[in-house]
Amino acid sequence: MKAAIIGTTGYTGQLLLRLLDNHSDVTEIIPVSSSKPGESLFDSCRGVDSSLIRKLGATNGKFVSVDEAERMSPDVVFAALPHLKSAEVCGGFFDKSVVIDLSADFRIKDEAKFFQSYNQAPPRPDLLQKAVYGLCEIYKEEIKSADLIANPGCYPTCTSLPLIPILKKFHLAGPVVVNALSGISGAGKKASMDLIFSERTENCNAYLPGKLHRHTNEIIQNLEGSLADVDLFFTPHLVPLKRGMFVSTFIQLTQEISSADIQSILTDAYADQPFVRLVGEKVPETYDVRCSNRIDIGWKVFGNSLYLFSAIDNLVKGASGQAVQNMNIRFGLEETAGLSLHGNV
Amino acid sequence: MKAAIIGTTGYTGQLLLRLLDNHSDVTEIIPVSSSKPGESLFDSCRGVDSSLIRKLGATNGKFVSVDEAERMSPDVVFAALPHLKSAEVCGGFFDKSVVIDLSADFRIKDEAKFFQSYNQAPPRPDLLQKAVYGLCEIYKEEIKSADLIANPGCYPTCTSLPLIPILKKFHLAGPVVVNALSGISGAGKKASMDLIFSERTENCNAYLPGKLHRHTNEIIQNLEGSLADVDLFFTPHLVPLKRGMFVSTFIQLTQEISSADIQSILTDAYADQPFVRLVGEKVPETYDVRCSNRIDIGWKVFGNSLYLFSAIDNLVKGASGQAVQNMNIRFGLEETAGLSLHGNV
Amino acid sequence: MKAAIIGTTGYTGQLLLRLLDNHSDVTEIIPVSSSKPGESLFDSCRGVDSSLIRKLGATNGKFVSVDEAERMSPDVVFAALPHLKSAEVCGGFFDKSVVIDLSADFRIKDEAKFFQSYNQAPPRPDLLQKAVYGLCEIYKEEIKSADLIANPGCYPTCTSLPLIPILKKFHLAGPVVVNALSGISGAGKKASMDLIFSERTENCNAYLPGKLHRHTNEIIQNLEGSLADVDLFFTPHLVPLKRGMFVSTFIQLTQEISSADIQSILTDAYADQPFVRLVGEKVPETYDVRCSNRIDIGWKVFGNSLYLFSAIDNLVKGASGQAVQNMNIRFGLEETAGLSLHGNV
Amino acid sequence: MKAAIIGTTGYTGQLLLRLLDNHSDVTEIIPVSSSKPGESLFDSCRGVDSSLIRKLGATNGKFVSVDEAERMSPDVVFAALPHLKSAEVCGGFFDKSVVIDLSADFRIKDEAKFFQSYNQAPPRPDLLQKAVYGLCEIYKEEIKSADLIANPGCYPTCTSLPLIPILKKFHLAGPVVVNALSGISGAGKKASMDLIFSERTENCNAYLPGKLHRHTNEIIQNLEGSLADVDLFFTPHLVPLKRGMFVSTFIQLTQEISSADIQSILTDAYADQPFVRLVGEKVPETYDVRCSNRIDIGWKVFGNSLYLFSAIDNLVKGASGQAVQNMNIRFGLEETAGLSLHGNV
Repeated sequence: MKAAIIGTTGYTGQLLLRLLDNHSDVTEIIPVSSSKPGESLFDSCRGVDSSLIRKLGATNGKFVSVDEAERMSPDVVFAALPHLKSAEVCGGFFDKSVVIDLSADFRIKDEAKFFQSYNQAPPRPDLLQKAVYGLCEIYKEEIKSADLIANPGCYPTCTSLPLIPILKKFHLAGPVVVNALSGISGAGKKASMDLIFSERTENCNAYLPGKLHRHTNEIIQNLEGSLADVDLFFTPHLVPLKRGMFVSTFIQLTQEISSADIQSILTDAYADQPFVRLVGEKVPETYDVRCSNRIDIGWKVFGNSLYLFSAIDNLVKGASGQAVQNMNIRFGLEETAGLSLHGNV
Repeated sequence: MKAAIIGTTGYTGQLLLRLLDNHSDVTEIIPVSSSKPGESLFDSCRGVDSSLIRKLGATNGKFVSVDEAERMSPDVVFAALPHLKSAEVCGGFFDKSVVIDLSADFRIKDEAKFFQSYNQAPPRPDLLQKAVYGLCEIYKEEIKSADLIANPGCYPTCTSLPLIPILKKFHLAGPVVVNALSGISGAGKKASMDLIFSERTENCNAYLPGKLHRHTNEIIQNLEGSLADVDLFFTPHLVPLKRGMFVSTFIQLTQEISSADIQSILTDAYADQPFVRLVGEKVPETYDVRCSNRIDIGWKVFGNSLYLFSAIDNLVKGASGQAVQNMNIRFGLEETAGLSLHGNV
Repeated sequence: MKAAIIGTTGYTGQLLLRLLDNHSDVTEIIPVSSSKPGESLFDSCRGVDSSLIRKLGATNGKFVSVDEAERMSPDVVFAALPHLKSAEVCGGFFDKSVVIDLSADFRIKDEAKFFQSYNQAPPRPDLLQKAVYGLCEIYKEEIKSADLIANPGCYPTCTSLPLIPILKKFHLAGPVVVNALSGISGAGKKASMDLIFSERTENCNAYLPGKLHRHTNEIIQNLEGSLADVDLFFTPHLVPLKRGMFVSTFIQLTQEISSADIQSILTDAYADQPFVRLVGEKVPETYDVRCSNRIDIGWKVFGNSLYLFSAIDNLVKGASGQAVQNMNIRFGLEETAGLSLHGNV
Repeated sequence: MKAAIIGTTGYTGQLLLRLLDNHSDVTEIIPVSSSKPGESLFDSCRGVDSSLIRKLGATNGKFVSVDEAERMSPDVVFAALPHLKSAEVCGGFFDKSVVIDLSADFRIKDEAKFFQSYNQAPPRPDLLQKAVYGLCEIYKEEIKSADLIANPGCYPTCTSLPLIPILKKFHLAGPVVVNALSGISGAGKKASMDLIFSERTENCNAYLPGKLHRHTNEIIQNLEGSLADVDLFFTPHLVPLKRGMFVSTFIQLTQEISSADIQSILTDAYADQPFVRLVGEKVPETYDVRCSNRIDIGWKVFGNSLYLFSAIDNLVKGASGQAVQNMNIRFGLEETAGLSLHGNV
C-alpha cells in the first residue's frame, strides 16, 4: 500500500502520519503539499524527524507537489485539508487513487443543505452521489467498493452511531436533544486567541447551540431511514481537555421501553463491529477511549424516555482513525490493522 | 458581627473562612469543631496560618467545641457539614443564632421527597417549614427575617434562577431537559480514587442521569409555582476543571416566543439583583464568573423552543458566596459586602 | 485616589482594573488608550460590563486618549504596556502623576545591560536613575517618595526576595542555579500557536536556559550588594497551569549553615512584611498563593548547600498586585488595601 | 512468547497489559494475582473488557494464583508490584522464567545504600549481583542474557541517559544539580488526598529536595564509572500533567567545552539506539514523547557550564515501555516491537 497525505500540519494530518507509519500494510507514505513542495515535512511536524518516520521512501521527507504525487500513483490519498478547499486540491486523484477526504466537501448529499451549513455551494456537486459516507459501522458494504470516501465529522460519528439503530425501531414522541462535549483539539491547530491555554483552562461553555452548528445537517442526514422525521437540537460545548468527545442524547419515544430492549437492538447492530463497545447502564468516559478508535456506548431508560451516552477520541474515531479504518475496509485489510482497540492508561 | 464556622476542612468551609476574613462587617470568626476542640485550625487549613487569618480573636486559632461556641453567642453560624449530620450538630444554635446551613438537611420541604433523595428521613422535620430556602434572588424578603436558612445546592442554584421567571409566564409543551457540567471541586475534598488528577484530567462523562441525582427534587421544588407541572430530566457531567458550573436547559413551550420576550422577563426579574448578569444571545462562560458570586445567564430561541444557559462558580454562588450573601441580606448589610462582582482574570 | 490604566486588554491590565475597582481608596478609574479613544472599554474586557465596574465615572466606560487623561490629572497612572513602548506613551504623565510602569522600560539601570537584554537602548535613559525599582519589601523607603516606579518582573520578584537577605550574609562558593516554573499566563494574552491549549496541556519544557532570558540581568541587578559577585544560571520552564510561579534556587556557600540560620535571617528581613510568609523546611506550593499577593518562602539545608523555594501568583505579586502594593506604599495607604493575603481555595 | 503480569491495577500494570496485547510476538498473557485468584481481571481494569484483550487464552480473563502461573511456565514475568513486596511474590519464578521487575527491589546493588533509600534491607540480597539493571541503552549486552532484570526508575532513566556519556569524558568542577518535573501519574494510582484533581490542578511544587528522594542513590549508582565522584543534588517537582517527565541537569566541568563536543559524545553513545533522539540546542518537550518509548535529549553550553535537558513519558520509557524493551532485547526480538517511536499528537 502506497499512501499519500495532503495536509500534514494540523492534528488530523499529524496523526495520520503516525498511524500510517505504524501500519504494517503501508509500505510508503507520500507527503503532499500544493504550497510548499520541496520543503521538509519535518519543519511542520513536531516531535518527529526523518529518523523516526520510516516510510517516506523516494520523497526523503520532502513534500511533493500534487502533480508529482499523482505521477507516483498512490493506492490511497488521505486529504486532511480545510473544508471547501479539499475537493479542488484532490481533483487530479479522482478515478486514479482511492480518496479518503477528511473535510466536509462530500459529506452532505443535498446541495441546499450543504449550502445552509457551509454558506457556499458544494465544490463538486457532480461527485456528491458517488462519494460514500465513511461511517464505517453503517456503510461498510458500500465502503468496500468506494473510490471516494467522505470521512464523517466527529460530532456526527459520536451522535449517530448510538441513535441510528434505535430510530429504526421506535417512533419519536418529541425532539432529539443532543448535548455534546468536545476537547479543544476539535477546533484544530490554529493560533486563535479563543484557543490559548489561559483562556480555555478552567473554562467551559456551549457554542452554536440548537440549530446553528454545521454538523447538524450531517447528523440529520445520518438519521434518514428513521421511522419518523427527526427534529434535532444539537448543542456542542467546549471543555478543557485536549482529546475526547462525550455525547448525551435525550429522546422520548411513543412507547415504553426497557434497558434490555436497547441492549438487544444495539447488540444486533454492533456485535460484530470491533470498535463498538456497549457498556450498558454504566456511563462511558472519554478516558477509556483516549487514543483508541473505539466508540463506547451506554444508555439509561426512564419509561418512554431514553438517554444514550457515547464517547470517542475526536481525533481517532472522530477523524484520522476512522479514515484508516475506511482504508482497511476498502482494501480488504484487517479492519483493526494499525488502530488501537485500547484506550491509553 | 460575630460569625461561627462549623466544618472548615472542606472547600466550602475553607472558602467561608477566607471570605469572612475579608468581610468588613465581620469582626470575629469562631472556628467550631465537635471532634477536635483545642486543636489548631491551621492544621487542617492549607496555605494560611495565624498571621493571615486576622479575626480569630479569643479562640486564638484553636477550634472550640460546639458547647463553647454556643456560649460565645455568635450572631451567625455557618454550617459546612455533611448532609444528615448538620442539623444535629447545629441543634444548640437554633433560636440563639442565625444558622446558615450549607448542607441539604433543610432544603427539601416534603418529607417523602427528602427521603427519596437522601434515603433517610429529614433529621429535623419540625424545622422544615421554618427554614427559609436561601436562593437569594427569589426569597430575599423571607431571608430578611429568617433564623434558619437552607443554603441551596450548586446545581439547583444554577438551574433554577434562569428557569423560574420563564416558567411563571409560559406553559411547557414537554419535559425540561437539563445538561449540567460541573468542576471537580463539586465532589468535595475527599481522598477518592475517582477524583485523583490522573483519573480526571483528559476525562469527562455524565453521571446519575435523568432522575437519579439528589438535586433533582430540589430543582423541582424550586419550580413550584410554574404554570404547569415540570417533568425534569437532569443530567450532570464531570469536566476537568476545578471550579465552575455550566448549565444548558432545553424546553419547548406551547407558543412561539422571541428573544426579546426572554430578555424582558429576565430583566423584570433580575434588573436590581447585583449578582445576576444577563448576556442575551451570547453564551456565558464559566471563566467569566470564576471566583465571583455572579450568575451569568444567556439564551437562544428557536420558534417555541428555548435554550437557557447559565454559569456560576460552584464554590461561590453555588455554596459559600451565596451563604455570605444570605448573611448580608439577613443582617441588613450591603448585599455585595465581602463578595466579588468580578470573575478572576 | 484617581487612577488611570493604560493598556487593559492583557491579563495584567484586566487584573488591575478589577483590583482597583475593589480597592476602597480608589474612587475613579480612567481607562486610557492611545489607539482607540472613544471606544468602549468593555469590548476588550471579558466577563465584565458597565454594570460591574463601578468607578469609571466621567469616562462612562469609554477609553480616553492619553492627552485627555493627562488633563484629568490622575493621582496615579498604571502602565500595562509592552516593553519599549511604555516609556514613550507615558511621557506626558511624568512629573504630573505618579507613574507605576509594569513594563521593563525602567527596571535595568545599566544601559549596556538593558541593551543586552532588550536588544535596544533604554527608551528614556534620562529617567533610569530617577525610577525606583518597585520590589516593595526591599525598597519600601524609596518607594514612599517615588514618582516613577518600575514594577519588577515576575521571575525577578520570586527569585530575588529569598536570595537577597541570604547573599548579604554569606559568601558564595559557586554559581547561583535557579530553576523556575511559570504558568502560561506569564506569556501574556497573545494568539500564538505555541500557547494554544492543545499545545500546552500535558506538556512542559525549559526555554531560554542559563543566560538567555531577559530577566537574568534584572535578577543580577537585584543581587548587587551581595558579599560577592553572582554567577547566575537561570532556567525558566513552562508548565501547564494558568497562574503560578515556583522557583527552586540552589547555592553553595563557603561555610556550613543550619536551617535555623536561614530562618533567622529571613525572619529578620521579612517579619514585618505582610505579604511574605516563611514556611520553613516545608516546600511552598503555588496553590497556596493563587490569587493572593503573597510570596511563600521555604528552604532546605545540606551542609554548605542551600535550596531556597519560593512561590507567587505571577499575575498578582509578579505583576498587578505588586503594582497596587506600590501605590499603597507610595500614597501612605494601608499596604494590604485592595489585595488578598489569602490564596484561593 | 507467553508473558505473565503480576499486578495489573496500577498504571504500569495496565499499560503493560495493553502494550503486550498489541505486541506481535506475544501470544498469551497470564494475569497473576496473589490476593484475588479466580476474580475477573476486568473488574480492576478500566475501559477494557474480555472482548478487547485478546490474548488471555486459558485464563479467560480470570486472575491465576502465583503457584498456578508458575505451572503455566511463562517465558517472561513482569512484576508491577510495590517496592519491598515484589521480590517475595516473584520468588517462585526465578530460574524458571525471565523476571522483569518494575519495583526497586533489585535496582540498588549496595545493601547499605538500599537501606538508606528504602529504610529496610534489600529483600533478596543474594540476587542483587545477579540482577541486571535494565537501562537498555547502557546495559544492552548484559540484558541479552539476563534472567532477572531490574527495570529502572523513571527519574533515574531520564537523568542518567544524558549524563553517563558526558561524565565518562569530562571531570566535574562542582556538584550535579538536577531539577526534575514529573506528571502526577508518577505517584501511582492511589486514593490520596494530595493527588486529587482539585489539589493538583493549578498547582506545582518541589518535594523531597536535594538528597531526600529514594531515586538519588539509584542515579548515583548509574554514574559510577564517571571520571570523578558525583555530588548529586536532585530535586523533583510535581507539575499538573498526567504523563511526562522533564529533567534539567546543570553541571560545571574543569574545562571549556563546545556544543559540538556534546553532540559528538552523545551521537557516539546513542546513534544506533532507536529510542534516543538528540535535538541539539533545541530544548525537548514532554509533548513530543508522550506515549512513546523515546527519550529526547538536548543541551546548552556556556563556557565550562553545561545544561542537559531530557524528556520521557514516565509511564513508557520510565516504566512499562522500557520493561517491554528489556523483553525485546532479552529474547532477541526487534527492539522496537510493540513500542511506539512516535509521541502522540
